[in-house]
Amino acid sequence: MTEDHRTPVTVVGLGSMGRALAEAFVDAGHLTTVWNRTATKAVPLVAKGAVHATDVRAAVEASPLVITCLTTFEDTRSALEPAAAALSGRALVTLNSGSPAGARAMAEWASGHAARFLAGAVKNVPAAVGAPDTLLYYSGDRTVFDEYETTLKVLGGDTVHLGAEHDLAALYEMAVGAMLLPTLVGFFQGAAAVQARGLEATSMVRFSAKWLDMIKSLLPLYAKEIDSGDYTDAASSVNLFLSGMAHDKDLTEETNVDTDWLAPLHELVKRAAAAGHGEHSVSALTEVLRTPAHNA
Amino acid sequence: MTEDHRTPVTVVGLGSMGRALAEAFVDAGHLTTVWNRTATKAVPLVAKGAVHATDVRAAVEASPLVITCLTTFEDTRSALEPAAAALSGRALVTLNSGSPAGARAMAEWASGHAARFLAGAVKNVPAAVGAPDTLLYYSGDRTVFDEYETTLKVLGGDTVHLGAEHDLAALYEMAVGAMLLPTLVGFFQGAAAVQARGLEATSMVRFSAKWLDMIKSLLPLYAKEIDSGDYTDAASSVNLFLSGMAHDKDLTEETNVDTDWLAPLHELVKRAAAAGHGEHSVSALTEVLRTPAHNA
Repeated sequence: MTEDHRTPVTVVGLGSMGRALAEAFVDAGHLTTVWNRTATKAVPLVAKGAVHATDVRAAVEASPLVITCLTTFEDTRSALEPAAAALSGRALVTLNSGSPAGARAMAEWASGHAARFLAGAVKNVPAAVGAPDTLLYYSGDRTVFDEYETTLKVLGGDTVHLGAEHDLAALYEMAVGAMLLPTLVGFFQGAAAVQARGLEATSMVRFSAKWLDMIKSLLPLYAKEIDSGDYTDAASSVNLFLSGMAHDKDLTEETNVDTDWLAPLHELVKRAAAAGHGEHSVSALTEVLRTPAHNA
Repeated sequence: MTEDHRTPVTVVGLGSMGRALAEAFVDAGHLTTVWNRTATKAVPLVAKGAVHATDVRAAVEASPLVITCLTTFEDTRSALEPAAAALSGRALVTLNSGSPAGARAMAEWASGHAARFLAGAVKNVPAAVGAPDTLLYYSGDRTVFDEYETTLKVLGGDTVHLGAEHDLAALYEMAVGAMLLPTLVGFFQGAAAVQARGLEATSMVRFSAKWLDMIKSLLPLYAKEIDSGDYTDAASSVNLFLSGMAHDKDLTEETNVDTDWLAPLHELVKRAAAAGHGEHSVSALTEVLRTPAHNA
Protein backbone atom coordinates (compact mmCIF):
# COMPACT_ATOMS: atom_id res chain seq x y z
CA MET A 1 0.00 0.00 0.00
CA THR A 2 2.80 2.37 0.87
CA GLU A 3 6.56 2.41 0.92
CA ASP A 4 6.41 4.37 4.14
CA HIS A 5 8.31 2.66 6.97
CA ARG A 6 5.66 3.67 9.48
CA THR A 7 3.59 0.86 10.91
CA PRO A 8 -0.13 0.86 10.10
CA VAL A 9 -2.01 1.16 13.38
CA THR A 10 -5.57 0.43 14.44
CA VAL A 11 -7.20 2.24 17.32
CA VAL A 12 -10.34 0.70 18.82
CA GLY A 13 -12.33 2.88 21.22
CA LEU A 14 -12.68 6.58 20.46
CA GLY A 15 -13.46 8.26 23.74
CA SER A 16 -11.49 11.40 24.47
CA MET A 17 -8.28 9.45 25.13
CA GLY A 18 -8.75 7.08 22.18
CA ARG A 19 -9.36 10.02 19.86
CA ALA A 20 -6.16 11.67 21.13
CA LEU A 21 -4.20 8.47 20.48
CA ALA A 22 -5.60 8.06 16.96
CA GLU A 23 -4.98 11.71 16.17
CA ALA A 24 -1.36 11.41 17.29
CA PHE A 25 -0.85 8.50 14.88
CA VAL A 26 -2.53 10.35 12.02
CA ASP A 27 -0.41 13.43 12.71
CA ALA A 28 2.74 11.29 12.75
CA GLY A 29 1.90 9.96 9.31
CA HIS A 30 0.79 6.44 10.24
CA LEU A 31 -1.91 4.77 8.24
CA THR A 32 -4.48 4.81 11.02
CA THR A 33 -7.61 2.70 11.09
CA VAL A 34 -10.21 3.49 13.71
CA TRP A 35 -13.32 1.83 15.02
CA ASN A 36 -15.86 2.72 17.67
CA ARG A 37 -19.20 1.21 18.55
CA THR A 38 -20.79 4.64 18.11
CA ALA A 39 -19.51 5.40 14.63
CA THR A 40 -20.04 9.18 14.77
CA LYS A 41 -17.05 9.47 17.07
CA ALA A 42 -14.83 8.55 14.12
CA VAL A 43 -16.00 11.46 11.93
CA PRO A 44 -13.45 14.11 13.05
CA LEU A 45 -10.64 11.56 12.73
CA VAL A 46 -11.69 10.56 9.22
CA ALA A 47 -11.67 14.25 8.31
CA LYS A 48 -8.03 14.29 9.38
CA GLY A 49 -7.11 11.24 7.34
CA ALA A 50 -7.95 8.19 9.45
CA VAL A 51 -9.70 5.22 7.88
CA HIS A 52 -12.99 4.21 9.47
CA ALA A 53 -13.38 0.44 9.47
CA THR A 54 -16.87 -0.84 8.86
CA ASP A 55 -16.66 -3.35 11.69
CA VAL A 56 -14.24 -4.31 14.42
CA ARG A 57 -12.95 -7.32 12.53
CA ALA A 58 -12.03 -5.18 9.55
CA ALA A 59 -10.37 -2.76 11.96
CA VAL A 60 -8.21 -5.50 13.47
CA GLU A 61 -7.35 -6.94 10.09
CA ALA A 62 -6.16 -3.55 8.84
CA SER A 63 -3.00 -3.37 10.95
CA PRO A 64 -0.35 -5.54 12.58
CA LEU A 65 -0.62 -3.32 15.69
CA VAL A 66 -4.02 -2.95 17.38
CA ILE A 67 -4.39 -0.48 20.23
CA THR A 68 -7.54 -0.47 22.33
CA CYS A 69 -8.66 2.37 24.51
CA LEU A 70 -11.91 1.35 26.17
CA THR A 71 -13.02 1.95 29.74
CA THR A 72 -12.34 -1.48 31.22
CA PHE A 73 -10.79 -4.82 30.27
CA GLU A 74 -14.32 -6.29 30.17
CA ASP A 75 -15.36 -3.61 27.65
CA THR A 76 -12.24 -4.38 25.67
CA ARG A 77 -12.95 -8.11 25.41
CA SER A 78 -16.57 -7.44 24.62
CA ALA A 79 -15.62 -5.05 21.79
CA LEU A 80 -12.94 -7.38 20.38
CA GLU A 81 -14.93 -10.61 20.61
CA PRO A 82 -16.25 -10.47 17.00
CA ALA A 83 -12.66 -9.93 15.84
CA ALA A 84 -11.02 -12.53 18.08
CA ALA A 85 -10.05 -14.89 15.28
CA ALA A 86 -8.29 -12.04 13.47
CA LEU A 87 -6.07 -11.26 16.45
CA SER A 88 -3.90 -14.33 15.94
CA GLY A 89 -0.29 -13.26 15.46
CA ARG A 90 -1.08 -9.57 15.79
CA ALA A 91 0.21 -7.23 18.47
CA LEU A 92 -2.58 -6.18 20.83
CA VAL A 93 -1.93 -3.23 23.14
CA THR A 94 -4.51 -2.18 25.71
CA LEU A 95 -4.55 1.31 27.20
CA ASN A 96 -7.23 1.40 29.84
CA SER A 97 -7.63 1.53 33.58
CA GLY A 98 -8.07 -1.73 35.40
CA SER A 99 -6.81 -3.94 38.15
CA PRO A 100 -3.81 -6.26 37.96
CA ALA A 101 -6.28 -9.16 38.11
CA GLY A 102 -8.15 -7.63 35.16
CA ALA A 103 -4.88 -7.41 33.20
CA ARG A 104 -4.13 -11.07 33.94
CA ALA A 105 -7.60 -12.11 32.73
CA MET A 106 -7.08 -10.03 29.60
CA ALA A 107 -3.71 -11.69 29.02
CA GLU A 108 -5.29 -15.10 29.29
CA TRP A 109 -7.99 -14.13 26.80
CA ALA A 110 -5.40 -12.69 24.40
CA SER A 111 -3.24 -15.78 24.73
CA GLY A 112 -6.29 -17.94 23.97
CA HIS A 113 -6.59 -16.11 20.66
CA ALA A 114 -2.84 -16.23 19.97
CA ALA A 115 -2.50 -12.44 20.17
CA ARG A 116 0.87 -10.98 21.21
CA PHE A 117 -0.28 -8.93 24.17
CA LEU A 118 1.15 -5.83 25.79
CA ALA A 119 -0.86 -4.22 28.61
CA GLY A 120 -0.32 -0.50 28.84
CA ALA A 121 -1.37 2.49 30.89
CA VAL A 122 -1.23 6.15 30.01
CA LYS A 123 -0.64 8.24 33.11
CA ASN A 124 -1.96 11.51 31.80
CA VAL A 125 -4.77 13.52 30.27
CA PRO A 126 -5.68 13.32 26.54
CA ALA A 127 -4.11 16.75 25.89
CA ALA A 128 -0.72 15.35 26.95
CA VAL A 129 -0.74 12.58 24.33
CA GLY A 130 2.18 12.99 21.96
CA ALA A 131 4.33 15.21 24.18
CA PRO A 132 8.00 14.24 24.57
CA ASP A 133 7.75 13.80 28.35
CA THR A 134 4.36 12.07 28.50
CA LEU A 135 4.65 8.77 30.36
CA LEU A 136 3.11 5.54 29.15
CA TYR A 137 4.00 2.24 30.66
CA TYR A 138 3.62 -1.24 29.36
CA SER A 139 4.06 -4.74 30.64
CA GLY A 140 3.85 -8.13 28.98
CA ASP A 141 5.27 -9.31 25.66
CA ARG A 142 8.67 -7.66 25.37
CA THR A 143 8.98 -8.52 21.67
CA VAL A 144 5.92 -6.38 20.95
CA PHE A 145 7.45 -3.50 22.87
CA ASP A 146 10.80 -3.81 21.13
CA GLU A 147 9.26 -4.15 17.67
CA TYR A 148 6.88 -1.19 18.05
CA GLU A 149 8.70 1.05 20.52
CA THR A 150 9.19 3.83 17.96
CA THR A 151 5.52 3.68 17.04
CA LEU A 152 4.39 3.65 20.67
CA LYS A 153 6.58 6.70 21.34
CA VAL A 154 4.28 8.67 19.03
CA LEU A 155 1.90 8.63 22.01
CA GLY A 156 4.47 9.99 24.48
CA GLY A 157 8.24 10.17 24.59
CA ASP A 158 8.58 8.58 28.02
CA THR A 159 7.65 5.03 27.09
CA VAL A 160 8.66 2.31 29.55
CA HIS A 161 8.48 -1.49 29.62
CA LEU A 162 8.06 -2.58 33.25
CA GLY A 163 8.49 -6.31 32.85
CA ALA A 164 7.17 -9.46 31.26
CA GLU A 165 4.27 -9.97 33.68
CA HIS A 166 1.17 -8.54 32.05
CA ASP A 167 -0.27 -7.05 35.24
CA LEU A 168 2.65 -4.80 36.14
CA ALA A 169 1.39 -1.76 34.25
CA ALA A 170 -1.96 -2.04 36.05
CA LEU A 171 -0.20 -2.50 39.38
CA TYR A 172 1.96 0.59 38.89
CA GLU A 173 -0.95 2.58 37.55
CA MET A 174 -2.92 1.87 40.71
CA ALA A 175 0.08 2.33 43.00
CA VAL A 176 1.11 5.64 41.44
CA GLY A 177 -2.43 6.82 40.80
CA ALA A 178 -3.34 6.49 44.48
CA MET A 179 -2.04 10.02 45.05
CA LEU A 180 -4.49 11.72 42.70
CA LEU A 181 -7.79 12.03 44.56
CA PRO A 182 -6.23 12.69 48.01
CA THR A 183 -3.92 15.35 46.58
CA LEU A 184 -6.71 17.04 44.67
CA VAL A 185 -9.08 17.05 47.64
CA GLY A 186 -6.27 18.57 49.73
CA PHE A 187 -6.03 21.33 47.13
CA PHE A 188 -9.81 21.80 46.94
CA GLN A 189 -9.99 22.04 50.72
CA GLY A 190 -7.36 24.78 50.66
CA ALA A 191 -9.20 26.54 47.84
CA ALA A 192 -12.44 26.49 49.84
CA ALA A 193 -10.53 27.85 52.86
CA VAL A 194 -9.04 30.87 51.07
CA GLN A 195 -12.37 31.51 49.37
CA ALA A 196 -14.07 31.51 52.78
CA ARG A 197 -11.87 34.52 53.45
CA GLY A 198 -12.98 36.25 50.25
CA LEU A 199 -9.73 35.45 48.42
CA GLU A 200 -9.37 33.73 45.06
CA ALA A 201 -8.32 30.10 44.82
CA THR A 202 -6.04 31.25 42.01
CA SER A 203 -4.00 33.21 44.56
CA MET A 204 -2.75 29.98 46.13
CA VAL A 205 -1.89 28.08 42.93
CA ARG A 206 1.71 29.26 42.81
CA PHE A 207 2.23 28.27 46.43
CA SER A 208 0.49 24.90 46.04
CA ALA A 209 2.59 24.13 42.96
CA LYS A 210 5.75 24.85 44.94
CA TRP A 211 4.47 22.71 47.79
CA LEU A 212 3.99 19.80 45.39
CA ASP A 213 7.56 20.32 44.21
CA MET A 214 8.69 20.14 47.83
CA ILE A 215 6.70 16.92 48.36
CA LYS A 216 8.15 15.51 45.15
CA SER A 217 11.67 16.21 46.38
CA LEU A 218 11.00 14.04 49.45
CA LEU A 219 9.89 10.92 47.56
CA PRO A 220 13.34 9.40 46.85
CA LEU A 221 14.25 9.65 50.55
CA TYR A 222 10.94 8.14 51.69
CA ALA A 223 11.20 5.32 49.15
CA LYS A 224 14.70 4.55 50.41
CA GLU A 225 13.44 4.41 53.99
CA ILE A 226 10.56 2.16 52.98
CA ASP A 227 12.82 -0.17 50.99
CA SER A 228 15.37 -0.45 53.79
CA GLY A 229 12.78 -0.59 56.59
CA ASP A 230 15.00 1.85 58.49
CA TYR A 231 12.89 4.82 59.57
CA THR A 232 15.18 6.07 62.33
CA ASP A 233 16.79 9.04 60.55
CA ALA A 234 13.59 11.09 60.49
CA ALA A 235 13.53 14.43 58.66
CA SER A 236 9.81 14.69 59.55
CA SER A 237 8.66 12.40 62.32
CA VAL A 238 5.30 10.74 62.90
CA ASN A 239 5.06 12.81 66.10
CA LEU A 240 5.51 16.01 64.09
CA PHE A 241 2.45 15.07 62.03
CA LEU A 242 0.65 14.01 65.19
CA SER A 243 1.04 17.51 66.65
CA GLY A 244 0.27 19.18 63.31
CA MET A 245 -3.06 17.37 62.99
CA ALA A 246 -4.60 19.64 65.62
CA HIS A 247 -4.56 22.45 63.05
CA ASP A 248 -7.09 20.71 60.84
CA LYS A 249 -9.78 21.40 63.43
CA ASP A 250 -8.58 25.02 63.50
CA LEU A 251 -9.13 25.25 59.76
CA THR A 252 -12.71 24.08 60.08
CA GLU A 253 -13.33 26.54 62.92
CA GLU A 254 -11.80 29.37 60.92
CA THR A 255 -13.41 28.70 57.54
CA ASN A 256 -16.20 26.14 58.10
CA VAL A 257 -14.53 23.92 55.50
CA ASP A 258 -15.07 20.17 55.87
CA THR A 259 -11.96 18.45 57.21
CA ASP A 260 -13.78 15.29 58.34
CA TRP A 261 -12.28 13.36 55.44
CA LEU A 262 -8.90 13.65 57.17
CA ALA A 263 -10.05 11.62 60.20
CA PRO A 264 -8.81 8.22 58.91
CA LEU A 265 -5.47 9.81 58.02
CA HIS A 266 -5.21 11.03 61.58
CA GLU A 267 -6.03 7.50 62.70
CA LEU A 268 -3.17 6.12 60.62
CA VAL A 269 -0.77 8.62 62.21
CA LYS A 270 -2.03 7.70 65.67
CA ARG A 271 -1.71 3.98 64.91
CA ALA A 272 1.87 4.52 63.72
CA ALA A 273 2.72 6.38 66.93
CA ALA A 274 1.04 3.67 69.01
CA ALA A 275 3.08 1.04 67.17
CA GLY A 276 6.28 2.74 68.35
CA HIS A 277 6.98 4.84 65.25
CA GLY A 278 6.52 8.23 66.98
CA GLU A 279 10.11 9.38 66.52
CA HIS A 280 10.46 7.57 63.21
CA SER A 281 10.10 9.11 59.76
CA VAL A 282 6.53 9.69 58.61
CA SER A 283 7.26 7.13 55.88
CA ALA A 284 6.77 4.51 58.62
CA LEU A 285 3.05 5.00 57.94
CA THR A 286 3.71 2.51 55.14
CA GLU A 287 4.09 -0.20 57.80
CA VAL A 288 0.66 0.66 59.18
CA LEU A 289 -0.90 0.61 55.71
CA ARG A 290 0.45 -2.90 55.28
CA THR A 291 -1.66 -4.00 58.25
CA PRO A 292 -5.28 -3.01 57.65
CA ALA A 293 -7.02 -1.98 60.88
CA HIS A 294 -9.73 -4.61 60.40
CA ASN A 295 -7.01 -7.28 60.28
CA ALA A 296 -4.83 -5.87 63.07
CA MET B 1 29.64 48.12 66.23
CA THR B 2 30.26 47.61 62.53
CA GLU B 3 30.14 49.59 59.33
CA ASP B 4 28.64 46.61 57.61
CA HIS B 5 25.29 47.47 56.03
CA ARG B 6 23.85 44.12 57.06
CA THR B 7 21.17 44.23 59.72
CA PRO B 8 21.99 42.56 63.05
CA VAL B 9 19.47 39.76 63.54
CA THR B 10 18.32 37.81 66.58
CA VAL B 11 16.94 34.29 66.25
CA VAL B 12 14.96 32.92 69.21
CA GLY B 13 14.24 29.19 69.17
CA LEU B 14 16.90 26.82 67.90
CA GLY B 15 15.10 23.67 66.85
CA SER B 16 16.16 22.22 63.51
CA MET B 17 14.44 25.02 61.56
CA GLY B 18 15.62 27.79 63.92
CA ARG B 19 19.19 26.55 63.66
CA ALA B 20 18.92 26.56 59.86
CA LEU B 21 17.64 30.15 59.92
CA ALA B 22 20.41 31.33 62.26
CA GLU B 23 23.06 29.56 60.23
CA ALA B 24 21.83 31.22 57.04
CA PHE B 25 22.23 34.64 58.66
CA VAL B 26 25.70 33.80 59.99
CA ASP B 27 26.74 32.51 56.57
CA ALA B 28 25.42 35.70 54.95
CA GLY B 29 27.60 37.80 57.24
CA HIS B 30 24.91 39.16 59.57
CA LEU B 31 25.75 39.78 63.20
CA THR B 32 23.53 37.01 64.52
CA THR B 33 22.42 36.70 68.13
CA VAL B 34 20.74 33.48 69.18
CA TRP B 35 18.84 32.29 72.21
CA ASN B 36 17.21 29.04 73.16
CA ARG B 37 15.76 27.82 76.43
CA THR B 38 18.06 24.81 76.24
CA ALA B 39 21.35 26.63 75.79
CA THR B 40 23.33 23.69 74.41
CA LYS B 41 21.46 24.03 71.11
CA ALA B 42 23.36 27.29 70.54
CA VAL B 43 26.80 25.68 70.73
CA PRO B 44 27.25 24.73 67.05
CA LEU B 45 26.01 28.18 65.99
CA VAL B 46 28.43 29.95 68.32
CA ALA B 47 31.22 27.85 66.82
CA LYS B 48 30.23 29.32 63.44
CA GLY B 49 30.25 32.91 64.73
CA ALA B 50 26.82 33.54 66.26
CA VAL B 51 26.56 35.35 69.58
CA HIS B 52 24.78 33.49 72.34
CA ALA B 53 22.72 35.88 74.48
CA THR B 54 22.64 35.11 78.19
CA ASP B 55 18.89 35.59 78.38
CA VAL B 56 16.01 36.28 76.03
CA ARG B 57 15.87 39.97 76.95
CA ALA B 58 19.52 40.43 76.00
CA ALA B 59 18.79 38.52 72.78
CA VAL B 60 15.94 40.86 71.86
CA GLU B 61 17.95 43.96 72.78
CA ALA B 62 20.83 42.88 70.53
CA SER B 63 19.04 43.47 67.19
CA PRO B 64 16.40 45.65 65.55
CA LEU B 65 15.03 42.52 63.87
CA VAL B 66 13.95 39.59 66.05
CA ILE B 67 12.93 36.33 64.38
CA THR B 68 11.29 33.59 66.43
CA CYS B 69 11.06 29.96 65.40
CA LEU B 70 9.23 28.09 68.15
CA THR B 71 6.62 25.39 67.79
CA THR B 72 3.49 27.44 68.45
CA PHE B 73 2.37 31.02 68.99
CA GLU B 74 1.79 30.16 72.66
CA ASP B 75 5.38 28.93 72.99
CA THR B 76 6.51 32.12 71.28
CA ARG B 77 4.72 34.43 73.71
CA SER B 78 5.86 32.35 76.65
CA ALA B 79 9.49 32.56 75.51
CA LEU B 80 9.32 36.29 74.75
CA GLU B 81 7.38 37.32 77.88
CA PRO B 82 10.52 38.21 79.93
CA ALA B 83 11.69 40.38 77.01
CA ALA B 84 8.32 41.95 76.25
CA ALA B 85 9.33 45.47 77.33
CA ALA B 86 12.36 45.34 75.04
CA LEU B 87 10.22 44.61 71.97
CA SER B 88 8.91 48.16 71.75
CA GLY B 89 9.78 49.65 68.38
CA ARG B 90 11.55 46.50 67.19
CA ALA B 91 10.55 44.34 64.26
CA LEU B 92 9.25 40.95 65.42
CA VAL B 93 8.91 38.20 62.84
CA THR B 94 7.42 34.83 63.77
CA LEU B 95 8.11 31.71 61.73
CA ASN B 96 6.04 28.89 63.17
CA SER B 97 3.00 26.81 62.42
CA GLY B 98 -0.27 27.98 63.86
CA SER B 99 -3.84 28.86 63.09
CA PRO B 100 -5.04 32.21 61.72
CA ALA B 101 -6.68 32.78 65.12
CA GLY B 102 -3.33 32.11 66.77
CA ALA B 103 -1.68 34.67 64.50
CA ARG B 104 -4.32 37.25 65.38
CA ALA B 105 -3.78 36.64 69.09
CA MET B 106 -0.04 36.96 68.56
CA ALA B 107 -0.56 40.24 66.69
CA GLU B 108 -2.62 41.59 69.56
CA TRP B 109 0.08 40.63 72.06
CA ALA B 110 2.80 42.19 69.89
CA SER B 111 0.76 45.35 69.45
CA GLY B 112 0.30 45.53 73.24
CA HIS B 113 4.09 45.68 73.53
CA ALA B 114 4.46 48.13 70.64
CA ALA B 115 6.37 45.64 68.51
CA ARG B 116 6.19 46.00 64.72
CA PHE B 117 4.85 42.53 63.87
CA LEU B 118 5.17 40.41 60.76
CA ALA B 119 3.77 36.86 60.90
CA GLY B 120 5.62 34.49 58.62
CA ALA B 121 5.58 30.88 57.51
CA VAL B 122 8.32 28.85 55.90
CA LYS B 123 6.87 26.26 53.53
CA ASN B 124 9.79 23.89 53.46
CA VAL B 125 12.29 21.70 55.29
CA PRO B 126 15.31 23.11 57.16
CA ALA B 127 17.68 21.93 54.42
CA ALA B 128 15.93 24.25 51.95
CA VAL B 129 16.57 27.40 54.01
CA GLY B 130 18.69 29.86 52.04
CA ALA B 131 17.97 28.46 48.58
CA PRO B 132 17.00 30.95 45.86
CA ASP B 133 13.62 29.32 45.23
CA THR B 134 12.65 28.57 48.84
CA LEU B 135 9.27 30.10 49.63
CA LEU B 136 8.56 32.06 52.81
CA TYR B 137 5.45 34.09 53.19
CA TYR B 138 4.63 36.89 55.52
CA SER B 139 1.62 38.96 56.47
CA GLY B 140 1.17 41.97 58.70
CA ASP B 141 3.24 45.14 59.01
CA ARG B 142 4.27 46.01 55.47
CA THR B 143 6.89 48.54 56.65
CA VAL B 144 8.78 45.71 58.39
CA PHE B 145 8.69 43.66 55.21
CA ASP B 146 9.88 46.55 53.05
CA GLU B 147 12.64 47.57 55.47
CA TYR B 148 14.01 44.04 55.93
CA GLU B 149 13.10 42.34 52.67
CA THR B 150 16.75 41.92 51.65
CA THR B 151 17.56 40.42 55.04
CA LEU B 152 14.55 38.10 54.97
CA LYS B 153 15.60 36.91 51.52
CA VAL B 154 18.68 35.39 53.15
CA LEU B 155 16.26 32.68 54.31
CA GLY B 156 14.85 31.99 50.86
CA GLY B 157 14.74 33.87 47.60
CA ASP B 158 10.99 33.51 47.09
CA THR B 159 9.84 35.88 49.82
CA VAL B 160 6.27 37.15 49.59
CA HIS B 161 4.11 39.65 51.51
CA LEU B 162 0.51 38.43 51.36
CA GLY B 163 -1.22 41.45 52.90
CA ALA B 164 -1.57 43.63 55.96
CA GLU B 165 -3.77 41.23 57.93
CA HIS B 166 -1.52 39.30 60.28
CA ASP B 167 -3.33 35.99 59.88
CA LEU B 168 -2.95 35.61 56.12
CA ALA B 169 0.35 33.71 56.27
CA ALA B 170 -1.21 31.23 58.72
CA LEU B 171 -4.30 30.93 56.53
CA TYR B 172 -2.25 30.21 53.39
CA GLU B 173 0.05 27.87 55.25
CA MET B 174 -2.94 25.79 56.35
CA ALA B 175 -4.67 26.01 52.99
CA VAL B 176 -1.61 25.03 50.99
CA GLY B 177 -0.30 22.57 53.59
CA ALA B 178 -3.54 20.56 53.48
CA MET B 179 -2.12 18.57 50.56
CA LEU B 180 0.85 17.17 52.45
CA LEU B 181 -0.43 14.27 54.54
CA PRO B 182 -3.01 13.03 51.98
CA THR B 183 -0.43 13.13 49.17
CA LEU B 184 2.19 11.33 51.25
CA VAL B 185 -0.21 8.62 52.39
CA GLY B 186 -1.22 8.15 48.75
CA PHE B 187 2.45 7.59 47.96
CA PHE B 188 2.99 5.28 50.95
CA GLN B 189 -0.04 3.23 49.93
CA GLY B 190 1.44 2.82 46.46
CA ALA B 191 4.81 1.91 47.97
CA ALA B 192 3.22 -0.77 50.13
CA ALA B 193 1.39 -2.08 47.06
CA VAL B 194 4.49 -2.51 44.88
CA GLN B 195 6.36 -3.99 47.83
CA ALA B 196 3.57 -6.52 48.30
CA ARG B 197 4.59 -7.72 44.84
CA GLY B 198 8.25 -7.98 45.85
CA LEU B 199 9.22 -4.78 44.02
CA GLU B 200 11.09 -1.83 45.46
CA ALA B 201 9.27 1.38 46.37
CA THR B 202 12.17 3.17 44.72
CA SER B 203 11.04 1.72 41.37
CA MET B 204 7.92 3.91 41.42
CA VAL B 205 9.53 7.21 42.49
CA ARG B 206 10.17 8.43 38.96
CA PHE B 207 6.58 7.67 37.98
CA SER B 208 5.13 9.22 41.14
CA ALA B 209 7.21 12.37 40.61
CA LYS B 210 5.85 12.67 37.10
CA TRP B 211 2.34 12.09 38.36
CA LEU B 212 2.75 14.97 40.82
CA ASP B 213 3.92 17.14 37.90
CA MET B 214 0.77 16.17 36.04
CA ILE B 215 -1.38 17.04 39.05
CA LYS B 216 0.49 20.33 39.41
CA SER B 217 -0.26 21.18 35.80
CA LEU B 218 -3.99 20.86 36.52
CA LEU B 219 -4.11 23.30 39.46
CA PRO B 220 -4.45 26.57 37.50
CA LEU B 221 -7.42 25.17 35.58
CA TYR B 222 -9.10 23.84 38.73
CA ALA B 223 -8.54 27.14 40.56
CA LYS B 224 -10.12 28.99 37.66
CA GLU B 225 -13.15 26.68 37.75
CA ILE B 226 -13.44 27.14 41.52
CA ASP B 227 -13.13 30.93 41.28
CA SER B 228 -15.69 31.18 38.50
CA GLY B 229 -18.01 28.55 39.94
CA ASP B 230 -18.33 27.18 36.41
CA TYR B 231 -17.57 23.46 36.46
CA THR B 232 -19.24 22.57 33.18
CA ASP B 233 -16.16 22.25 30.93
CA ALA B 234 -14.89 19.10 32.66
CA ALA B 235 -11.53 17.63 31.66
CA SER B 236 -12.02 14.99 34.38
CA SER B 237 -15.56 14.62 35.64
CA VAL B 238 -16.87 13.64 39.06
CA ASN B 239 -18.40 10.57 37.38
CA LEU B 240 -14.96 9.56 36.07
CA PHE B 241 -13.68 9.51 39.65
CA LEU B 242 -16.85 7.76 40.76
CA SER B 243 -16.14 4.87 38.39
CA GLY B 244 -12.41 4.88 39.19
CA MET B 245 -13.06 4.46 42.91
CA ALA B 246 -13.95 0.81 42.39
CA HIS B 247 -10.27 0.11 41.76
CA ASP B 248 -9.30 0.97 45.33
CA LYS B 249 -11.00 -2.21 46.52
CA ASP B 250 -9.12 -4.07 43.79
CA LEU B 251 -5.84 -2.77 45.19
CA THR B 252 -6.66 -4.11 48.64
CA GLU B 253 -7.66 -7.47 47.19
CA GLU B 254 -4.48 -7.62 45.15
CA THR B 255 -1.98 -6.46 47.76
CA ASN B 256 -3.77 -6.49 51.14
CA VAL B 257 -2.86 -2.81 51.51
CA ASP B 258 -5.20 -0.71 53.64
CA THR B 259 -7.36 1.55 51.48
CA ASP B 260 -9.99 2.21 54.16
CA TRP B 261 -8.67 5.75 54.63
CA LEU B 262 -10.06 6.56 51.18
CA ALA B 263 -13.67 5.88 52.23
CA PRO B 264 -14.49 9.51 53.18
CA LEU B 265 -12.97 10.68 49.89
CA HIS B 266 -15.29 8.31 48.09
CA GLU B 267 -18.14 9.76 50.15
CA LEU B 268 -17.23 13.27 48.97
CA VAL B 269 -17.27 12.10 45.36
CA LYS B 270 -20.64 10.41 45.87
CA ARG B 271 -22.05 13.51 47.56
CA ALA B 272 -20.84 15.66 44.66
CA ALA B 273 -22.53 13.33 42.17
CA ALA B 274 -25.71 13.30 44.26
CA ALA B 275 -25.65 17.11 44.32
CA GLY B 276 -25.82 17.14 40.51
CA HIS B 277 -22.09 17.53 39.79
CA GLY B 278 -21.69 14.11 38.07
CA GLU B 279 -20.78 15.52 34.68
CA HIS B 280 -19.01 18.53 36.18
CA SER B 281 -15.28 18.88 36.70
CA VAL B 282 -13.89 17.07 39.74
CA SER B 283 -13.04 20.53 41.11
CA ALA B 284 -16.74 20.78 41.99
CA LEU B 285 -15.81 18.71 45.06
CA THR B 286 -14.85 22.12 46.47
CA GLU B 287 -18.57 22.93 46.68
CA VAL B 288 -19.14 19.81 48.76
CA LEU B 289 -16.21 20.63 51.07
CA ARG B 290 -17.81 24.01 51.70
CA THR B 291 -20.83 22.25 53.16
CA PRO B 292 -19.69 19.86 55.89
CA ALA B 293 -21.83 16.71 55.95
CA HIS B 294 -22.77 17.25 59.59
CA ASN B 295 -24.19 20.68 58.65
CA ALA B 296 -25.78 19.58 55.39
